[in-house]
Amino acid sequence: MEREQIERVVRAVINDSLSASEKPHVCKCKRKMTLALANALIEAVCKKANEMGLSVVVAVSDEGGNPVSVQSMDNAYLASYDIALNKAYTVVALKMSTQQLNALAVPGGSLYGIQFTNNGKIVIFGGGEPLMGEGTKIVGGVGISGGSAEQDTALAAYAKQYWEDYIWRSTKA
Amino acid sequence: MEREQIERVVRAVINDSLSASEKPHVCKCKRKMTLALANALIEAVCKKANEMGLSVVVAVSDEGGNPVSVQSMDNAYLASYDIALNKAYTVVALKMSTQQLNALAVPGGSLYGIQFTNNGKIVIFGGGEPLMGEGTKIVGGVGISGGSAEQDTALAAYAKQYWEDYIWRSTKA
Amino acid sequence: MEREQIERVVRAVINDSLSASEKPHVCKCKRKMTLALANALIEAVCKKANEMGLSVVVAVSDEGGNPVSVQSMDNAYLASYDIALNKAYTVVALKMSTQQLNALAVPGGSLYGIQFTNNGKIVIFGGGEPLMGEGTKIVGGVGISGGSAEQDTALAAYAKQYWEDYIWRSTKA
Amino acid sequence: MEREQIERVVRAVINDSLSASEKPHVCKCKRKMTLALANALIEAVCKKANEMGLSVVVAVSDEGGNPVSVQSMDNAYLASYDIALNKAYTVVALKMSTQQLNALAVPGGSLYGIQFTNNGKIVIFGGGEPLMGEGTKIVGGVGISGGSAEQDTALAAYAKQYWEDYIWRSTKA
Repeated sequence: MEREQIERVVRAVINDSLSASEKPHVCKCKRKMTLALANALIEAVCKKANEMGLSVVVAVSDEGGNPVSVQSMDNAYLASYDIALNKAYTVVALKMSTQQLNALAVPGGSLYGIQFTNNGKIVIFGGGEPLMGEGTKIVGGVGISGGSAEQDTALAAYAKQYWEDYIWRSTKA
Repeated sequence: MEREQIERVVRAVINDSLSASEKPHVCKCKRKMTLALANALIEAVCKKANEMGLSVVVAVSDEGGNPVSVQSMDNAYLASYDIALNKAYTVVALKMSTQQLNALAVPGGSLYGIQFTNNGKIVIFGGGEPLMGEGTKIVGGVGISGGSAEQDTALAAYAKQYWEDYIWRSTKA
Repeated sequence: MEREQIERVVRAVINDSLSASEKPHVCKCKRKMTLALANALIEAVCKKANEMGLSVVVAVSDEGGNPVSVQSMDNAYLASYDIALNKAYTVVALKMSTQQLNALAVPGGSLYGIQFTNNGKIVIFGGGEPLMGEGTKIVGGVGISGGSAEQDTALAAYAKQYWEDYIWRSTKA
Repeated sequence: MEREQIERVVRAVINDSLSASEKPHVCKCKRKMTLALANALIEAVCKKANEMGLSVVVAVSDEGGNPVSVQSMDNAYLASYDIALNKAYTVVALKMSTQQLNALAVPGGSLYGIQFTNNGKIVIFGGGEPLMGEGTKIVGGVGISGGSAEQDTALAAYAKQYWEDYIWRSTKA
């Protein structure tokens, strides 16, 4: 973990603690997705995408499936905005990666047809991963679009791991 | 039939009779889906889902395909609301279970393409069953979403049977 | 508060406690909307609507604006389902009653035009109220449709009060 | 201009220059909206909103009306995401602030009815401003939602000015 990554995460955590301490009615023990955490994750993913020579859109949603931050790298596909946003929705709404969903939604698969439900918000190809809190609890989702399905899938796996290793873990009291 | 099931159904029937007696303009001879009957069915399905360790959304529609009651168990998938609701629509709109529809809607099947009609309201995987009245008359539909396709299909079959054995039969004069 | 109301609420609370104790990873100190609480509220509202001679649809959403339970009384308007559901979304999404929004959304008002945003999910006439938790925290919303705007508004006010007096308060440890 | 503002803008400009130098095919003479510039603007607006005690969603679009970055401050209204996003679209699509549009879209106004076009993407209340490049050229738009119409309008005016004074000007060769 590089020095700047550490700084970024520390800053996000401090911002979170401060805003929590200013609002005494908010229960502190249930940690949730925040804009600071979402932006720290997106920054890391964009840096990685840049190293891979990709321009992607990265979206982060909260546990209710609502978008927290969506950012489009320069020269990303216009179509990627909708796809990234809805991948971030799909993984929260179905509690699995879009990669896992892909296998289930083929003709003859047990979830064939799920891609036509929820007003087109279900995306069934790789690039979306749920973001985990304690145990099996999902606190949000990340959706990435702009590379090939394989590249998006790899970036989403990177994002999920980065979230667990550096961002979520660091917010623990 | 357990004691509590009996109580629940009796309660539903009494509620129906009472509300019918208060509204003399409603024709009593044509029995229809009611909120009391729908809720009795949903309660039974949720109990069964709980025994199976599942959190599902259960929807019941009337003979017009319109929703009567839709209930989301704690921790059910967010995406399941839309799916359960539209399974309950699909089975009334097409007069077959969504499981039967699944086989017909694959590429090459006789109904391939039906999933793109009706503004996305047609769901083509298991978990929806029509609810029968007298003979072949459909009085409503049940849609369940939240488990695997197999689990949803099994729960819908349970719901259909429960409706026929305990709920509809008990409302007969 | 009648004996049956007390029983109903106690049952809801016990169900809640039990399901919480069975899931040790869920933080217990942040109480949320549950299906048991939503159904207890809807049952009370339907009873009140019946006394007023009304057939309404009642919807309850959680803090993310997602529906938890939606129930349509016998002979309610078909159009009321969408309206009740979206009132329950609107009050969470804008943190005010739909009655308050009504005054702001008239031509010349400061929020004129808000009714055309969010894909038609914003409803700007009475019948929706946020459901409060601790302090100013919103834990969900209730939307009611089926009577006149005045009747829906009165029923929503009743629901909000009933939630605060009997349901939410009773869940406190 | 405070020290930290200077730092922030300098950082954005350096990022831009670096990413431009790495991509030789991008024409440097036509300066456009970039993710770095959009994020610098959003950071400034969120800081200002925080000072005003507000939680808002801020969206920045490019000259094609497509979203570049959309960020939701903690505890912002859920409904604000759609509104901020579409304000940022509206100002580019109609080349005027949403505040100006408001007056024209009331019943009897010359643009009454425009709010029903473009699939609900036209927002007609304050909080959106076009972001200017050279002369009368529009390079993007900013949309803000979360306060009262007056507060959103004031924040959008601040954003427009900040863009002209610190961000766009600083990118000049």
